[in-house]
Amino acid sequence: MAQKPQTLAEKIISGRAGKDVYAGDITLVDVDVTAVQDGTGPLAVQQLEKMNLVQAANPDRTVLFIDHAAPSPQKDLSNAHAILRTFSKKTGAHLSEAGEGVCHQRLVETYVNPGDVLIGADSHTCTSGALGAFSTGMGSTDVAVGIALGKTWFRVPETFLVNVTGEFQKGVYAKDLILHLIGLIGADGATYKALEFRGETVEKMTMSQRFTLANMAVEAGAKAGLFETDATTKAYLEERGRGDKFKEIKADAGAEYERVIDIDVSKLEPTISKPHTVDNTATVSEVAGTKIEQVFIGTCTNGRIDDLEIAAKILEGKVRHPDTRLIIVPASKEIYLQAVQRGFIETFIRAGAIIMAPGCGPCVGVHEGALADGEACLATQNRNFQGRMGNTEGFIYLGSPAVAAATAIAGVIADPREVI
Amino acid sequence: MAQKPQTLAEKIISGRAGKDVYAGDITLVDVDVTAVQDGTGPLAVQQLEKMNLVQAANPDRTVLFIDHAAPSPQKDLSNAHAILRTFSKKTGAHLSEAGEGVCHQRLVETYVNPGDVLIGADSHTCTSGALGAFSTGMGSTDVAVGIALGKTWFRVPETFLVNVTGEFQKGVYAKDLILHLIGLIGADGATYKALEFRGETVEKMTMSQRFTLANMAVEAGAKAGLFETDATTKAYLEERGRGDKFKEIKADAGAEYERVIDIDVSKLEPTISKPHTVDNTATVSEVAGTKIEQVFIGTCTNGRIDDLEIAAKILEGKVRHPDTRLIIVPASKEIYLQAVQRGFIETFIRAGAIIMAPGCGPCVGVHEGALADGEACLATQNRNFQGRMGNTEGFIYLGSPAVAAATAIAGVIADPREVI
Repeated sequence: MAQKPQTLAEKIISGRAGKDVYAGDITLVDVDVTAVQDGTGPLAVQQLEKMNLVQAANPDRTVLFIDHAAPSPQKDLSNAHAILRTFSKKTGAHLSEAGEGVCHQRLVETYVNPGDVLIGADSHTCTSGALGAFSTGMGSTDVAVGIALGKTWFRVPETFLVNVTGEFQKGVYAKDLILHLIGLIGADGATYKALEFRGETVEKMTMSQRFTLANMAVEAGAKAGLFETDATTKAYLEERGRGDKFKEIKADAGAEYERVIDIDVSKLEPTISKPHTVDNTATVSEVAGTKIEQVFIGTCTNGRIDDLEIAAKILEGKVRHPDTRLIIVPASKEIYLQAVQRGFIETFIRAGAIIMAPGCGPCVGVHEGALADGEACLATQNRNFQGRMGNTEGFIYLGSPAVAAATAIAGVIADPREVI
Repeated sequence: MAQKPQTLAEKIISGRAGKDVYAGDITLVDVDVTAVQDGTGPLAVQQLEKMNLVQAANPDRTVLFIDHAAPSPQKDLSNAHAILRTFSKKTGAHLSEAGEGVCHQRLVETYVNPGDVLIGADSHTCTSGALGAFSTGMGSTDVAVGIALGKTWFRVPETFLVNVTGEFQKGVYAKDLILHLIGLIGADGATYKALEFRGETVEKMTMSQRFTLANMAVEAGAKAGLFETDATTKAYLEERGRGDKFKEIKADAGAEYERVIDIDVSKLEPTISKPHTVDNTATVSEVAGTKIEQVFIGTCTNGRIDDLEIAAKILEGKVRHPDTRLIIVPASKEIYLQAVQRGFIETFIRAGAIIMAPGCGPCVGVHEGALADGEACLATQNRNFQGRMGNTEGFIYLGSPAVAAATAIAGVIADPREVI
């Protein structure tokens, strides 16, 4: 028991620091899981080579993901992939090959447990916070040191408590909530804070919904997006053969929060982020009718089986608008397999979708679905920065899989509540 | 009835020239179908704009395919795609969007009939010759004129008669035959000739096998690869709702052939083209054991449902070698749907394959599966020129889907006869 009540961030970091730490403390911690992807990983390996530290302290929980440009669209990236394959062979670090899925989804499926510290060389590493892990993105060199030595350091963040109440209306989802929250506090509204998601609505959420919230914490500048563990966490781990890794992690009553944000979702509408920042939000009614040339459903934010199910229900028996391309990318191989088995892929093919191999897909703009000048995309991803989808002359709107599916049919941004 | 006996090339071209023509004649012909793809099409459109001829003489049989870089990996290609979309809207020409499939497969599925003349701005336009159409690749400007005016001109080619007898051994296919033939006569062995495929073995072939042969005629330099029409052609057209378009087309007894090539397939072995030319052939036993980093099953040559079935039977319950990536791309949306329904896609996912949207895939080296320096690929495609898969430092071996599947499991070039 700690000296004084702790937030989730304080509690998890304390567990790996070997002492009680609090917001503002700078501490060394043991790292459980380290991850890099094909954009950042080659740099990390090159740093380790320079330091003469080509090793992984914990190879079974060091994971090298080939997901950002997978399969490789050009030789320089292919050569970068080869660097990761060689490092994996030398150190025993796990390799997640092209087609196995987005790092953040693969991490929660297979590698991360409650109480863990995960550092990953990718912004959206915060996704695993939904499992009660302190999970955060860092630069390649910092992650490289974590890989080699199994340690890193943090300044323990202050925490914003996000207290969510009320019941979602039909057609409104966790994605709408997180876009609304970012619109409310701003893209730098929680810089270097932890967001702790609590309240009756969060307690009822599936793990997938919690991953969507945790994933986008960084879009408000947060260091982490954290959730208490509960029966839902336990069931998820059990399904994945890691039931023994469950542990209960709750914030202490009386822990100190820098800010408390109360959100009642019962009046929340489908929410859209307009170009070119995530906090540039609007309700779907405010932007309905905007012409869209490409719809993209997928990513670590919203490429899970329940997201595909929501889209499939709307697209069943329908065909995309002739002027609107529809790209769908399951977030992992496992999700792709489920989507085949449950008939969603057949529905998508019949609806005129382009289905790509599990991975980051068009979100990063390096190999699939780059926009033409002046084109607009409605995507379920987490970022709409100018140029994100491979073209600074493109326009990206963010929304839920339901908005995306309704939009693909209508050819313009559409309210999913009218078609479900 | 013609004045003197005609080859297939002479007969089909005469039908569209409105007079009897023979090898060596230069003649104007009516064009039934014109096609461009996303590499060549934007150039064709720009030529038409320069000539102030933005029109399609026959819009229902003018087809603009987005298949070579689909979905687009970068903005310049996205802008090129936009040119085709705009031209389609202006002229009524058909647009085959990203994800609908490779042009040559889509052409035989939907657009080309016996006796037609098809010109396409892509080398492998010769594929449709299997339907008894005179079908050939031309430059963008030539096809542009064909699109606008519905006419083109040819020098009627001399013909090589390829007379095929004997029964394929188990594990040996049409792909092995065509590689063997090209090895025999050389990559320039039939320059500007028509290849006319006949004989008891050809008569027993499915349309898919015939497409594989016709598709690679150009790899021996041929202008066209032609087949007589028969009950198999008729059944294929009937299945596709074009039974009324069937007509019997046979070469005349006594027609003049520049050369007759007899091939008995009963002793043919699985055949491989080694880097960097298609005619650099060997039997599979001669190259077995060569390390392969990437296997690619797909393309207009061998991405049809029977090809996927051959691969699925070998891959069922197996997993790819850990050091060998496996990329599978159905040649069209229709084939992809069948592959889902028949369980092949599930088999491929379980085998560790990366499945991409219907299109040209890694074959053209612009967006999926570029090789790293020094890597070797075993591909079912039709070309292994240096740099073809995006890297001049890569090595491409060509083989059948059976060789490809066996190789994916073994991690080295493997003889499929040992696993089927």
